[in-house]
Amino acid sequence: MITAYLWGTPNGFKVAIALEEMGLDYEIKWVNIGAGEQHEPDFLKVSPNGKIPAILDHGTGISLMESGAILQYLADKTGMFGGQSREDRWEVTQWLHWQMGGLGPMMGQVNHFRGLRDKVLYGETRYMNEAIRLFGVLDRQLDGRDFIAGDYSIADIAAVPWAGMAQIIGDELLTAHANVMAWIARNVARPATARAIALSPG
Amino acid sequence: MITAYLWGTPNGFKVAIALEEMGLDYEIKWVNIGAGEQHEPDFLKVSPNGKIPAILDHGTGISLMESGAILQYLADKTGMFGGQSREDRWEVTQWLHWQMGGLGPMMGQVNHFRGLRDKVLYGETRYMNEAIRLFGVLDRQLDGRDFIAGDYSIADIAAVPWAGMAQIIGDELLTAHANVMAWIARNVARPATARAIALSPG
Ligand SMILES: N[C@@H](CCC(=O)N[C@@H](CS)C(=O)NCC(=O)O)C(=O)O
Ligand SMILES: N[C@@H](CCC(=O)N[C@@H](CS)C(=O)NCC(=O)O)C(=O)O
Repeated sequence: MITAYLWGTPNGFKVAIALEEMGLDYEIKWVNIGAGEQHEPDFLKVSPNGKIPAILDHGTGISLMESGAILQYLADKTGMFGGQSREDRWEVTQWLHWQMGGLGPMMGQVNHFRGLRDKVLYGETRYMNEAIRLFGVLDRQLDGRDFIAGDYSIADIAAVPWAGMAQIIGDELLTAHANVMAWIARNVARPATARAIALSPG
Repeated sequence: MITAYLWGTPNGFKVAIALEEMGLDYEIKWVNIGAGEQHEPDFLKVSPNGKIPAILDHGTGISLMESGAILQYLADKTGMFGGQSREDRWEVTQWLHWQMGGLGPMMGQVNHFRGLRDKVLYGETRYMNEAIRLFGVLDRQLDGRDFIAGDYSIADIAAVPWAGMAQIIGDELLTAHANVMAWIARNVARPATARAIALSPG
């Protein structure tokens, strides 16, 4: 059994999607990051960086923070969605890291600056430009492919909640990138992904 | 033989350090990102995101972008610095992702805003505060430990070039975090790491 410490945010949804897609036995502990629960000592034991998501695998005793690490752990545990051949495995891994180091943090910054009441135009433009560039990279990668790195994988699971944020923070990111739009639709049409997205705190 | 596509920046140094520490046979192709060489079609074939670092392993034919993926690949190839026990391996992995998704991108933003001629105070403050928080997390993790995740590992290799950036962009990050400062010294005292740091384009 796995305890997943989540909240209803893109990094949390990655883990919910993986748990559903892999058919794992799990329970969710919602960590209300709006109320500061991520700073509580008990949570910091599983997530020393004080952020969701985190997991505790009761079978192995292993606890982990960082969504990218959690996805790799769950893929390793189940043998699912990590790539079959050696080539596929590393292709999945590079795109997982691309999401962790690029798409995720940069979409997070767009979201922050778009949400400011007192506009900081420099910041909003800087991160929106980088988001446009990253969506371009993803759109080219999806050209002629159903999924990012061969078969459906943890690279898709990592990227789809952040790409989906474009629906909230910048529709122009989607309308300009038809491959990304079709791939999001392909992902959310998966029953297990749909079940995960429907989960919500409270 | 491995061809490493690098430039003299923190993400490039991660790969140079790993290659030296692992004693691998390699050559460097410097990609001058100031001159736009990262946008050339031949480079985009190994690094579709148009950034250094990237590698091509002539032995396996595998090419990879993203420093985190490259470090995992090299650790897997050599059996070095990826953690020995299962617990260690996942501890290393979570801190590697913490660097990729947190310390790296956020220090990059501090560096950007500190370097602006026309100051954008909101941005500079936002990212400096996050850097201070991240250095605090790292300092607590290093309390009573020589390295981030048990033995010396790719988690250290990933984090040290970015933590070292504090020498350039914000000395206060170091003076307030004695464990981080001692750990940087411990890393750069390693002969292979020192050799890698001494490499420079041109
Ligand atoms: N690199 C981390 C990022 C995690 C992250 O940013 N989590 C956010 C929610 S999406 C959070 O917990 N924020 C609360 C806070 O920063 O205090 C990962 O991928 O797991
Ligand atoms: N997440 C990537 C980031 C790579 C990155 O930001 N590389 C920078 C140099 S440190 C670069 O190539 N910049 C050139 C550009 O953005 O055009 C990784 O860890 O490899």
